[in-house]
Amino acid sequence: MKRGNLIVLSGPSGVGKGTVLRRLLKDYKDIEYSISATTRPGRKGEIHGKDYFFLSEEEFFQMVDNNQFIEWAKVHNNYYGTPREYVEKTLQDGRDIILEIDIQGARKVRETYPEAVYVFLLPPSFSELEKRLNKRGTEDEKTKELRLKNAREELKELVNYDYQIINEDLEEAVEQLKAIIVAERCRVKK
Amino acid sequence: MKRGNLIVLSGPSGVGKGTVLRRLLKDYKDIEYSISATTRPGRKGEIHGKDYFFLSEEEFFQMVDNNQFIEWAKVHNNYYGTPREYVEKTLQDGRDIILEIDIQGARKVRETYPEAVYVFLLPPSFSELEKRLNKRGTEDEKTKELRLKNAREELKELVNYDYQIINEDLEEAVEQLKAIIVAERCRVKK
Repeated sequence: MKRGNLIVLSGPSGVGKGTVLRRLLKDYKDIEYSISATTRPGRKGEIHGKDYFFLSEEEFFQMVDNNQFIEWAKVHNNYYGTPREYVEKTLQDGRDIILEIDIQGARKVRETYPEAVYVFLLPPSFSELEKRLNKRGTEDEKTKELRLKNAREELKELVNYDYQIINEDLEEAVEQLKAIIVAERCRVKK
Repeated sequence: MKRGNLIVLSGPSGVGKGTVLRRLLKDYKDIEYSISATTRPGRKGEIHGKDYFFLSEEEFFQMVDNNQFIEWAKVHNNYYGTPREYVEKTLQDGRDIILEIDIQGARKVRETYPEAVYVFLLPPSFSELEKRLNKRGTEDEKTKELRLKNAREELKELVNYDYQIINEDLEEAVEQLKAIIVAERCRVKK
């Protein structure tokens, strides 16, 4: 059985990773989605066990102690982690799985899965990113500024990625992500 | 101006390179096609200046002498060559260009364009390839046997390619080729 590909979708906070991914998964059924665990409170509309596993800090660190995360990290004062078992089982079954993750997290995933496919989602520009963070309206001024500063830092990571997608037009971004997944299935493994 | 990608579509004779490529170009306009020159006689339906430049041996070797080919080779007793100027101009204009070429030719293109994207089109099986060569009905028995023997040899080249596409279902093969072209445009250049 040919092992599946792990696709890592990352990029600065607020760039639209979640939106692109949800749009992809709506029509495209040839890939599984790795659900992250987090201690941050759910946003409006987010569903436990679908968007995230929303855990208490106690539950979260129980999983850390049992080595049940591929990676975990503290981001913006909350903990995020990628449960190991589902990712590994899916890849072994020969199915692709996609992981939406912040850049710190992607860096750690690379330690375990250097062969994964790393996709960096870019904002059309930084003023656009600022607009989107404002529109989301869930962050206070200080948090927004911190996120923008981080985004500028994080852009330096692009060189470590295999692909970049500029999230200017949603449909086009989704089309490109889908093309990357299909193309990588055709890749000759060396 | 970001340089375009050169996509090299290769594979054993009779695998369906031409059919896949024509189907791609029918709907997909975001890529140019590199027209080869050849001294072999045109097949039914093939148009000079669209499918190939059909040249006399004298005309062909005039171009060889003027260094106007990226590569040229003798295959099955005919000469084939890739005119240099159009490929180079297209890439410099920032447009992608696709080149359909036999495996000997692809090997030579790699000397000038190691950074090109190499796609190997595979038959679903060798008995299928045989069936296709029979169906084409333009070759005598000895030519067919030679082509099949070559095909087995050529399969060893797969490891030098970036992508493989199994030409089982035409639409799926075209979809995969298109995905490769789109994905490669998103690739982070190192």
